[in-house]
Amino acid sequence: MKKQKSQYEIFREKIKIILYGTDTILGRMFDLILLGLILLSVLLIMLDTVQGISSKYHDQLLICEWIITVFFTIEYILRIISIQKPVKYIISFYGIIDLLAVLPMYLSIFFPGASILSIVRALRFLRLFKILHIPQINHQSLQLKEAIDASKEKILVFIYFVLISTIIIGSLMYLVEGKESGFTSIPMGIYWTIVTLTTVGYGDISPQTPLGQFIAAFVMILGYGIIAVPTGIVTAEFAKSSLKNNAVNSKKTCKKCQSQIHFDNAKYCYQCGTELPNN
Amino acid sequence: MKKQKSQYEIFREKIKIILYGTDTILGRMFDLILLGLILLSVLLIMLDTVQGISSKYHDQLLICEWIITVFFTIEYILRIISIQKPVKYIISFYGIIDLLAVLPMYLSIFFPGASILSIVRALRFLRLFKILHIPQINHQSLQLKEAIDASKEKILVFIYFVLISTIIIGSLMYLVEGKESGFTSIPMGIYWTIVTLTTVGYGDISPQTPLGQFIAAFVMILGYGIIAVPTGIVTAEFAKSSLKNNAVNSKKTCKKCQSQIHFDNAKYCYQCGTELPNN
Amino acid sequence: MKKQKSQYEIFREKIKIILYGTDTILGRMFDLILLGLILLSVLLIMLDTVQGISSKYHDQLLICEWIITVFFTIEYILRIISIQKPVKYIISFYGIIDLLAVLPMYLSIFFPGASILSIVRALRFLRLFKILHIPQINHQSLQLKEAIDASKEKILVFIYFVLISTIIIGSLMYLVEGKESGFTSIPMGIYWTIVTLTTVGYGDISPQTPLGQFIAAFVMILGYGIIAVPTGIVTAEFAKSSLKNNAVNSKKTCKKCQSQIHFDNAKYCYQCGTELPNN
Amino acid sequence: MKKQKSQYEIFREKIKIILYGTDTILGRMFDLILLGLILLSVLLIMLDTVQGISSKYHDQLLICEWIITVFFTIEYILRIISIQKPVKYIISFYGIIDLLAVLPMYLSIFFPGASILSIVRALRFLRLFKILHIPQINHQSLQLKEAIDASKEKILVFIYFVLISTIIIGSLMYLVEGKESGFTSIPMGIYWTIVTLTTVGYGDISPQTPLGQFIAAFVMILGYGIIAVPTGIVTAEFAKSSLKNNAVNSKKTCKKCQSQIHFDNAKYCYQCGTELPNN
Repeated sequence: MKKQKSQYEIFREKIKIILYGTDTILGRMFDLILLGLILLSVLLIMLDTVQGISSKYHDQLLICEWIITVFFTIEYILRIISIQKPVKYIISFYGIIDLLAVLPMYLSIFFPGASILSIVRALRFLRLFKILHIPQINHQSLQLKEAIDASKEKILVFIYFVLISTIIIGSLMYLVEGKESGFTSIPMGIYWTIVTLTTVGYGDISPQTPLGQFIAAFVMILGYGIIAVPTGIVTAEFAKSSLKNNAVNSKKTCKKCQSQIHFDNAKYCYQCGTELPNN
Repeated sequence: MKKQKSQYEIFREKIKIILYGTDTILGRMFDLILLGLILLSVLLIMLDTVQGISSKYHDQLLICEWIITVFFTIEYILRIISIQKPVKYIISFYGIIDLLAVLPMYLSIFFPGASILSIVRALRFLRLFKILHIPQINHQSLQLKEAIDASKEKILVFIYFVLISTIIIGSLMYLVEGKESGFTSIPMGIYWTIVTLTTVGYGDISPQTPLGQFIAAFVMILGYGIIAVPTGIVTAEFAKSSLKNNAVNSKKTCKKCQSQIHFDNAKYCYQCGTELPNN
Repeated sequence: MKKQKSQYEIFREKIKIILYGTDTILGRMFDLILLGLILLSVLLIMLDTVQGISSKYHDQLLICEWIITVFFTIEYILRIISIQKPVKYIISFYGIIDLLAVLPMYLSIFFPGASILSIVRALRFLRLFKILHIPQINHQSLQLKEAIDASKEKILVFIYFVLISTIIIGSLMYLVEGKESGFTSIPMGIYWTIVTLTTVGYGDISPQTPLGQFIAAFVMILGYGIIAVPTGIVTAEFAKSSLKNNAVNSKKTCKKCQSQIHFDNAKYCYQCGTELPNN
Repeated sequence: MKKQKSQYEIFREKIKIILYGTDTILGRMFDLILLGLILLSVLLIMLDTVQGISSKYHDQLLICEWIITVFFTIEYILRIISIQKPVKYIISFYGIIDLLAVLPMYLSIFFPGASILSIVRALRFLRLFKILHIPQINHQSLQLKEAIDASKEKILVFIYFVLISTIIIGSLMYLVEGKESGFTSIPMGIYWTIVTLTTVGYGDISPQTPLGQFIAAFVMILGYGIIAVPTGIVTAEFAKSSLKNNAVNSKKTCKKCQSQIHFDNAKYCYQCGTELPNN
């Protein structure tokens, strides 16, 4: 009995190394196969929505989709079994995505059409960086995250002000242009304002009256200045974190002249030539 | 008599705490209800302009709108009564908005259609930050304001030059393209130039002749470089204020002259030469 | 004879003060009237191209245009007469613009339709800053000019590379999409590429085949990264000039400890507390 | 025999100076003629795709194209003959382009229509900077390259995240909008998302349902914040390299260790402590 349990534990260990590990050849190979299957699966779901392809190969696509889903299901179960704290995995971000990636196919048995929701398995791509395990890229994405986090608050405050403006401008355009130009309601006017302020400019709705075009030109020039603001916020954060990481402002202090700003790799004080402390 | 007046004053005090205060539970609750009503009211006005909804529920929407308007009116009157300096409130930015938020509905009795101007009450959302009273967000919006203020002048000078260019380019396109392509007049050409330079690009008017398309391509590449300028201005301001706040803005205060911005490693006040506290 | 010449010289002096001066009341008033007339004139030319207005008021507009032209002509002649070095003025930037501003109307006597070229007098607006004489704004536009000048070379090199790319991408799209989608020739493909890379996106030509849309998506994401480059160049210049102008790096040197980086307005060395030299 | 070989070698030397050299008058002249021919050739290929021109002048264009191709072929052969290490040239970037520039015309003998691929000779323009040999511009394009290289990785990580988002958003829009609005499949939805997120906004596909427009507005505001990220990355790199080059990059060279980057005010080498020359 004890031996059998031990065998089960050895099996669990092995599975865990394959599923979660990235250092062994087997673990790495599994990860690459997994990524390939996710890519394949996402492509299949996409193709199944293309008229010409779906009408011809729908059945074949469906079968492939089911095979991959079963594979993902087994993987999901093995992940739960092999890990020490299964609940922690299940309620983790990746755990929820892994579940959502298989659920829609099973739901599609009862609700045909739900299978398309499987597209959510595209989120499993996020695991790439965990799999690749390249410290440099992890560092890059961390720096990205930091700069975005630091600027998030300012950008939200900014967007709040922009949204209030879009209500006012959208209503104004609704009053000026009226229904003939496609400004059929205030929400439509707001939609147009957002399309214009963000410089997307579909052209599905565009002002037709001279006054409307004048206001539109004004809104565009406003948007011109406005688009600079989030860029400015994010850039300043990047520059800050970038300067912090690379530049000059080391904490070395010259023992003789007490000057404090040196290159990170400086060995001698640039002021008096004294050797700098090593740390 | 004296007692009665005192009671009125207690009432005024209470009202003031509820309307202007954000520290008591009652004051905070009132603020949240107010925000909710503003949101509701703005949504109602919007929906009333949507054909399908308006034709069915116009009366119900109107009744709700009137109830909220009466509520806002009472609030406005109480705000005037309860504050020490009512005139200062009335002519303040928020006071004018509060008045404009209720006026259109009363005007709509005499001029039907004026009720749509009630949308201006969206501006009451600006009070959010005052209500939320989160110092961090106030700080953020202050920093935003500072950077935008500092770059405003440069951007205006820049837009002045851009506007002169749009007149020249717009006229050129009017001459080159002519009425067939939608360039019916010079103002139309200017409108097209602004749509293009700001990279909005509706496509309602677009050049059709080879020469026109060549000039258009040139204008776009120009716009490419030009869009960089306001962004550059704002970003530099952000970076400056950001550096000022972080690199230099140590929390040392000179005991003698009270100046506050010193280098992180400063030992002596740069203003009066007094030794700075060590921390 | 001598007296008469002297009178003529007094007259010249007076005219010069009015035309070129900005310090006397008369000189300032003349400048404001001039700006007003330029604005009026540009508006008149624009309105004359608007169908509805032109058909009704063409004659009145033409008369006004002639009156202003005569005024500008007299001004131009007086400018030449009153200045010491007339040739220098005539071949200067402003001199050429002043001439171009009146020439089209006289040409229109022989070539009807040339009058529209008078729109070039919009360039006379550039004089505004000279007229306003506000040092702060002059400083702003100088800073703008500096940063743009400094980044001009880098941006030109960059645009050269972009243009080579547009030829390759444009040809590719011409081959892939063909004439049905509006890609009628390689120049048309290049036009589309520029419209897309600059994120203008008219939509007058847009890819219809799956492969074309795939390449287009790739081009857009490329453009996404590419638009960042000129912005980055200009912003870095702004930041540099902004740091140079405002910040810390004054050339003051402490006589005692020889530390060199101080605030611009520092009076005492932050290192040793010694008084700093005044310059 | 020996003398003849020597003559051949003198010939080779001469050819090499003309083809690769930029210092002699002959070498420079050849380079300018070459650039002119590339420009002419590219223009001819372009014009040959324009309906009106091609139908009239196709034969003349073809003859010119063949003459230039023969010239390029001779040039290519001479380049191989005259250089010491021909293989190194052949497999170099420029060598491959030079080959690709002539190949399509010869292929067009067997496969009519291949001649259009000659447009790839536009890539020969890249040689301009080598030819111009202006150190300042080389420096500029090097700085450009450096900043782009440094930010490439971060931008790729960022685009990876953006692409995952486009799959999710594109599928959502496909589900919400359906085939009537042009969202005929998930790939089409992804195409639309990229068109919108990059603010290109053709308008060939645009949401028609209120819910779709609401999501679209959300995507645009997201794109608003997102477009700031690559700009921020590139700008921070430019600012860093710009600061490194200007603030720190004094022209002092340490006589002992030859290190070149010092503070402007450095007196001692930070690497070896040797006193720096004073200028």
